[in-house]
Amino acid sequence: MLVENEFGVLARVAGMFAARGYNIDSLSVAPTEDPHISRMTILTTGSELIIEQILKQLHRLIDAVKVQDLTGENFINREILLVKIKTGSGKVEEVLTLAKRYEAKVVDQAPQCITLEYVGENEKVDALLVELKAFGILESVRTGTIAIQRGEAHIEG
Amino acid sequence: MLVENEFGVLARVAGMFAARGYNIDSLSVAPTEDPHISRMTILTTGSELIIEQILKQLHRLIDAVKVQDLTGENFINREILLVKIKTGSGKVEEVLTLAKRYEAKVVDQAPQCITLEYVGENEKVDALLVELKAFGILESVRTGTIAIQRGEAHIEG
Repeated sequence: MLVENEFGVLARVAGMFAARGYNIDSLSVAPTEDPHISRMTILTTGSELIIEQILKQLHRLIDAVKVQDLTGENFINREILLVKIKTGSGKVEEVLTLAKRYEAKVVDQAPQCITLEYVGENEKVDALLVELKAFGILESVRTGTIAIQRGEAHIEG
Repeated sequence: MLVENEFGVLARVAGMFAARGYNIDSLSVAPTEDPHISRMTILTTGSELIIEQILKQLHRLIDAVKVQDLTGENFINREILLVKIKTGSGKVEEVLTLAKRYEAKVVDQAPQCITLEYVGENEKVDALLVELKAFGILESVRTGTIAIQRGEAHIEG
């Protein structure tokens, strides 16, 4: 969704989800080229009816410029994972082999750990994390999913 | 910050910023490997005093498991930009040259536009957007910044 950069807009969006009991799986909000507008990407799950109600409530928010449901649309989704993995007891080669298979980049190394950057669809981030668990994850941070439609379709204010 | 996956936690965090007039430049929230814990990355600006007050208020929130200020720490920061650019009137080669210079990937193409994926520090995302403006940006979406410390330092619950 595109929102006016008004004070408290994120609190109003998150408050609406909380008040009505709708789930937020991930959320990202960042500026756009227009200094008055921010773009928020919300990943949520629910029945068709729930999604319809969420859309209705989001449209009602005073700061909402544009709300679009990408379910069923042809879109690209991406997320970044930064993850720090234990590499004690000679595990570094194994971690590097796994990183290569996922095309994850090594962004930092220390004697006892290695930090990878992975960019992909959120299901692939989940899959990589499952494989990395065996080594011991010291820390991980994800951006949450963002999405853009394929072709010439686009969201504008 | 690490937060308990309690209902309305994002609303409480965003509400605290709004109520006290603190700015949020970008915010991302996504799950961690621990199903009870989510990690939130907030990019904010303010004097040392303001940042100190924000930290104090965040610590007070009932769902806060861990709050850490990375200002002045040795950390890596990353953000994804997905951006759709007009390529009418033979501009496609120019856009591809710029993409190559930034190591941005082409993720979609259509007769009148091209969609790039760029992963980098948020200042570099800003710089790329400035250069792309000349071509005409149809749509852009950013994840907001996430960060992880270099070396063995890490945030845990």
